[in-house]
Amino acid sequence: MAILFKSTPASIRRWRPFLTQAWPERDLRFWPEIGDRAEVRHALVWHPEPGLLASFPNLKLIVSLGAGVDHILRDPELPAGVPIVRLVDPYMTRAMSEYVVLQVLRLHRQDFVYRIQQAAAEWREHDQKNAAERTVGLLGFGQLGQDAAAKLKALGFDVAGWSRSGRAVPGFTTYGGAPGLNALLRRSEILVSLLPMTPETENILDAGLFARLPHGAGLVNAGRGRQLVEADLLAALDSGQVSAAVLDVFREEPLPPTHPFWRHPRIIVTPHVAAETHPPTATAIIATAIEDFEAGRPVANAIDRDKGY
Amino acid sequence: MAILFKSTPASIRRWRPFLTQAWPERDLRFWPEIGDRAEVRHALVWHPEPGLLASFPNLKLIVSLGAGVDHILRDPELPAGVPIVRLVDPYMTRAMSEYVVLQVLRLHRQDFVYRIQQAAAEWREHDQKNAAERTVGLLGFGQLGQDAAAKLKALGFDVAGWSRSGRAVPGFTTYGGAPGLNALLRRSEILVSLLPMTPETENILDAGLFARLPHGAGLVNAGRGRQLVEADLLAALDSGQVSAAVLDVFREEPLPPTHPFWRHPRIIVTPHVAAETHPPTATAIIATAIEDFEAGRPVANAIDRDKGY
Repeated sequence: MAILFKSTPASIRRWRPFLTQAWPERDLRFWPEIGDRAEVRHALVWHPEPGLLASFPNLKLIVSLGAGVDHILRDPELPAGVPIVRLVDPYMTRAMSEYVVLQVLRLHRQDFVYRIQQAAAEWREHDQKNAAERTVGLLGFGQLGQDAAAKLKALGFDVAGWSRSGRAVPGFTTYGGAPGLNALLRRSEILVSLLPMTPETENILDAGLFARLPHGAGLVNAGRGRQLVEADLLAALDSGQVSAAVLDVFREEPLPPTHPFWRHPRIIVTPHVAAETHPPTATAIIATAIEDFEAGRPVANAIDRDKGY
Repeated sequence: MAILFKSTPASIRRWRPFLTQAWPERDLRFWPEIGDRAEVRHALVWHPEPGLLASFPNLKLIVSLGAGVDHILRDPELPAGVPIVRLVDPYMTRAMSEYVVLQVLRLHRQDFVYRIQQAAAEWREHDQKNAAERTVGLLGFGQLGQDAAAKLKALGFDVAGWSRSGRAVPGFTTYGGAPGLNALLRRSEILVSLLPMTPETENILDAGLFARLPHGAGLVNAGRGRQLVEADLLAALDSGQVSAAVLDVFREEPLPPTHPFWRHPRIIVTPHVAAETHPPTATAIIATAIEDFEAGRPVANAIDRDKGY
């Protein structure tokens, strides 16, 4: 009855003291010290290499060490019957909302313009709208999207959300499906993507999508790097169709030092830090998931493999 | 019964259409076309030169075209008995809150560190606290301070306010006077100044104040430039006592092109745009003030000359 923890060495150093303190009676195995693979019942993983999870013959539950599960579902040998739980931690949700609000305000308040002016020691004011006159569109309107939306609304922004299902959320205009996406894009002066990574969302942030935004729209991508067609973003910035972009996720992470995004005056790069995992709070959430699972109770945030999230 | 409007030529161009449309029946005089000075009853002014207001023998009311009145009170020839009203416009209050929330989030989320890293194409994550674990101290806790405080609180920040009187504000810890200032500074990891410019607040942001903040605190000054001792800020940034500063106001505006603030990697300069006046909404507010005054009703936001705000 062992629990495997598999992540980067740095992550193992961060998590280990919290896990060992929370579960003194558990048989915890920290990668690469796996021991007898037949004893592993639960796997807490981040970017497991393909085939790893299939190597545990008695695996009962897989827990993602992040809000996304794309890093698990991409494994072609993923054991079919094993439930997968994603990490939904209010601490991380709040962190994501802080990030979204910061970046939306940065775009709303023309901070890119003022940063370029500062570099040139140029003192020049620009007319500024109130948040109430600015529509923010959120792609992805689950727990993360709705928390960010509520905080943007508290600042006065006009907020609308899009999700695959288009489910109604009190207090917000919501859209769903392909026609709904058009309607959302048409009004989004600032577009924020928090979409899960699925086959449908791969490359969704492309030239065709940018063309449907109001001219000069701002973009925030805190979903996944493979959702953005990088060359299309650079072209949209060149043409002015997109005025500026804030990116936390990239096709290749770490972003290679020679990548043009680093030096672009209209792109903000952050190193995948919008919502970092937080072991002190996440440990208790994962413990509850495992206990619920072992007791045969419903497990919160178990994913639907067909939907991909 | 004329109304004088005195500001910069650019400001006159912005305001003129709104004022003439709102008051078609009024005798409006736009600087420098004053006409007969004896006919001027009301003066709407921004940075009037010393002696100007004393040159209108029948002046009854002075309206500041901004939230501050220091630009009027510094006039040694200011007519003694004429009431002064400051412009309090919810549109500007909301703009100021947007600015404060943006800059507080920028400091909270270590954006200065990530901007410096981006310039070096350096991918490195840093541990990040939630807003609830960060105390923001607001110097100046009137209408502007309280609106910003409510919005910071909605994001989860621990917010405390200081005002001269220390008056209680439900939902917030408040401090007043000199001992209260010490107590506020001691806990303020991010300090925001929205103080009015008075003899007591001149040079208040100095080495002695910085030394009482937690080491590495962030500073936002959206009050007045003469409240900041510039050399002391540069020294505090050098020592690390202050980690970064966002400045919207300066001793000399426009900030001279050779000023060291422009090029400092730990200083954000914005060109006095935190809360720009907004003629469409402000015109109606000023009209109400003048009508209330003429009808003998109490006038909102009349200032107390002894307090200076």
